[in-house]
Amino acid sequence: MRNHELIERLSHLVGDNGLVLDAEGQGPYVRDWLGKWQGSTPVVVRPRNATEVSAVMRLCHQTRTPVVPQGGNTGMSGGATPDGSGAQVILSLNRMKRIREVDPVNNTLCADAGVLLADVQAAARDVGRFFPLSLGAEGSCTIGGNLATNAGGTAVLRYGNTRDLALGLEVVLPDGRVWNGLRGLRKDNTGYDLKSLFIGSEGTLGIITGAVLKLYPAPTGRVAAWVGADTPAQVVALLSRLQSVCGERLTAFEMMSARCLDLVMAHVSGAASPLAGRHAYYALVELSDTEPAGLPALLETALGAALEAGVIQDCVVAMNDTQVQSLWRLREGISQAQVRAGKAIKHDIALPISRLAAFVEEADLALVSDFPGLPIINFGHIGDGNLHYNVLLPLDVAPAEYARLTAALNRRVHDLVAQRGGSISAEHGVGQLRRDELRRYKSPVEMDLMLMIKRALDPNQLMNPGKLL
Amino acid sequence: MRNHELIERLSHLVGDNGLVLDAEGQGPYVRDWLGKWQGSTPVVVRPRNATEVSAVMRLCHQTRTPVVPQGGNTGMSGGATPDGSGAQVILSLNRMKRIREVDPVNNTLCADAGVLLADVQAAARDVGRFFPLSLGAEGSCTIGGNLATNAGGTAVLRYGNTRDLALGLEVVLPDGRVWNGLRGLRKDNTGYDLKSLFIGSEGTLGIITGAVLKLYPAPTGRVAAWVGADTPAQVVALLSRLQSVCGERLTAFEMMSARCLDLVMAHVSGAASPLAGRHAYYALVELSDTEPAGLPALLETALGAALEAGVIQDCVVAMNDTQVQSLWRLREGISQAQVRAGKAIKHDIALPISRLAAFVEEADLALVSDFPGLPIINFGHIGDGNLHYNVLLPLDVAPAEYARLTAALNRRVHDLVAQRGGSISAEHGVGQLRRDELRRYKSPVEMDLMLMIKRALDPNQLMNPGKLL
Repeated sequence: MRNHELIERLSHLVGDNGLVLDAEGQGPYVRDWLGKWQGSTPVVVRPRNATEVSAVMRLCHQTRTPVVPQGGNTGMSGGATPDGSGAQVILSLNRMKRIREVDPVNNTLCADAGVLLADVQAAARDVGRFFPLSLGAEGSCTIGGNLATNAGGTAVLRYGNTRDLALGLEVVLPDGRVWNGLRGLRKDNTGYDLKSLFIGSEGTLGIITGAVLKLYPAPTGRVAAWVGADTPAQVVALLSRLQSVCGERLTAFEMMSARCLDLVMAHVSGAASPLAGRHAYYALVELSDTEPAGLPALLETALGAALEAGVIQDCVVAMNDTQVQSLWRLREGISQAQVRAGKAIKHDIALPISRLAAFVEEADLALVSDFPGLPIINFGHIGDGNLHYNVLLPLDVAPAEYARLTAALNRRVHDLVAQRGGSISAEHGVGQLRRDELRRYKSPVEMDLMLMIKRALDPNQLMNPGKLL
Repeated sequence: MRNHELIERLSHLVGDNGLVLDAEGQGPYVRDWLGKWQGSTPVVVRPRNATEVSAVMRLCHQTRTPVVPQGGNTGMSGGATPDGSGAQVILSLNRMKRIREVDPVNNTLCADAGVLLADVQAAARDVGRFFPLSLGAEGSCTIGGNLATNAGGTAVLRYGNTRDLALGLEVVLPDGRVWNGLRGLRKDNTGYDLKSLFIGSEGTLGIITGAVLKLYPAPTGRVAAWVGADTPAQVVALLSRLQSVCGERLTAFEMMSARCLDLVMAHVSGAASPLAGRHAYYALVELSDTEPAGLPALLETALGAALEAGVIQDCVVAMNDTQVQSLWRLREGISQAQVRAGKAIKHDIALPISRLAAFVEEADLALVSDFPGLPIINFGHIGDGNLHYNVLLPLDVAPAEYARLTAALNRRVHDLVAQRGGSISAEHGVGQLRRDELRRYKSPVEMDLMLMIKRALDPNQLMNPGKLL
């Protein structure tokens, strides 16, 4: 079908306001926010509800039109950007913004895919509950995108990834049929876990149009601490101690190297080191609870024992929310500082926590030897075994050199990760970014299992072609 | 291939000790422990490791021999019993009993599928950690069976179902290939969630031979309370209050009707009501914590406030472990009391917690009206929305009458469950028991999605035929 005919029929389905046809309007849809990927599309389609998504998909199925689903377009791996063929229609969920139901007794919330993560959080807060998914882009990413990519963030240690936070889904299949799996049940053993299959499938199996999400009791207080340590092994030892003593109160456990803190202090105004001395590594620890009175004593006692045992070198406890927030600003400042300081080659890796310290030691040595002089920016969600083990190049590095070093460093780091049973994409997904690498690190059996499922659910290969698989 | 030829070739793969050929030896394998299902098999094959499972499956694939995987054979739905054709080979995992690795730093444990659940719990305890899955059959069920059926139990409220407790799997596919997905990672966004797909698939997609399980900090103390209330709505209201105040400390929240307690007191020696007065409903509440000093005060304050507000009628707090255990004996005594008192028609249903009280009200009325005089045995894991809403027939009920009433009551109850967005199998799975009903309550789209996956992964339909789908 020619494009103008397709567009004509699409406009009957979603109305003229539901289409974006001009190049300027399409701009924010056809390139990712990092500016790493740029594609083109005949039309951006913006349905208002699952029925319209279904109609659009039925038409695309009939006409064999490939479709790129898109949420807030804040991904890190190019999973929502079309290719350059001009053949791929972008299906944006950004007009589907309805919170369908909030049920504080069942501790669930049902939302359209296009609701902003921050709006989900707010709707939970409005009924005295808590939706724990939290990440930098929460003001612009959508819950549908979070589900499609199984987003991680800073609260995974306690509450799990997005997949763990969903009880039910509504999905429009590649042929336009609607699967209504919007169940709000904690237990349901009536067949295959279709929900978990669609979550994290990056739009390659269908389009998530709605979800039933889990809500939690809202913690009513928190404390945090900034810790200085000599090695990642010490940081991991502290993690074990705090888990044993604090249980689920341990809500976040982040690590960063001295170089990360240096960068933040150099590039983020007002940033200052919370400790007098300099340490090779720092940890940011947060406890929260529905019954917070005992938190400061609990944390101080645990840290005191760790100091005494020589597990850590120094620490300071933040006693009020302003102090807690200022510690978090240091952690969150790394991204911004990194952008100002240079061009980062990024890794989003996960390791078994017991192998993490040895990995850092080995990877540091390997990079110093093979890529001398390149600063390593090592930080991450250590409580989940998730490191953003980045390498910083000068701001004026030539594009070809950047590309060459990226490929070489990715290979070096990811080979070490694979040897230790780790993941080359902990929370950012595969998208276009890691697609070729996936074939290197996944077993043929696992690749084949994924392809069998892809072929079964999307036999015409119309869903987000060129991503993930 | 004729049976003697198949057996000959199997004996080369697993040794003569790995086969059970005589009728007496096969007895415990070809019927389920409840005595509800009885089938037959040419041979029970008992491989020692995944390599042998792989060889057996390759042979079965070549010879188009159907296979019934079996763990501890303690299921409630006939999922591990062969049919009566005599064509289905039973593949028992009960010689695969190795705990492969315990990693207290990563909080993981890797075990063969045939390890008893109680042995997994013990191995975790030995390193100061906790594996929370707990259910009545834990001394005889296997972790592989728990995974294949996504078992529930008494700790789901806090820790989730079995699916939530596994990080990685090893699976032998229907064609004999081995998928090594034994990852011990908290974050891994590199493709489809194959793990969750195999978990709960009841042996219809492959054979789980090993798993990496999550361990938790061990709670070091617990308190419990026995509560009297007038209605399920009051019990649900108490649940909401306790969740808000106690957060994750709330480890179990069980409900039972007065009739359940009567039954236990009549049939279980030493059982006595913890409260002086009689109440229509009772709740058993447990809190546990890694830092348990504050638990008694927390629970007493919360219950005192609920009493004051008229949410509950009476309560007693168990202050030491002996008292806590005696409360649990009342809850756990229901199964035994039920067996002694009559023949139960069972339902294992789940509802959104916000609709649970209204469901009980409506179902009670419907049953009193349509099945007058039949006692309702209503108890369950209310914290998960999971009710075992059973009906008791006399011990001497005629088999035909039992069958007729079972069908009629299942239909009546499950129709009401479906109307309220519930599940007809919360934790026991589908197996043979609910297979026909599944088609009634699942949408055609959902059935078709499951069948597409089944056909893709098991095109010859050799895996556990007649179960689930």
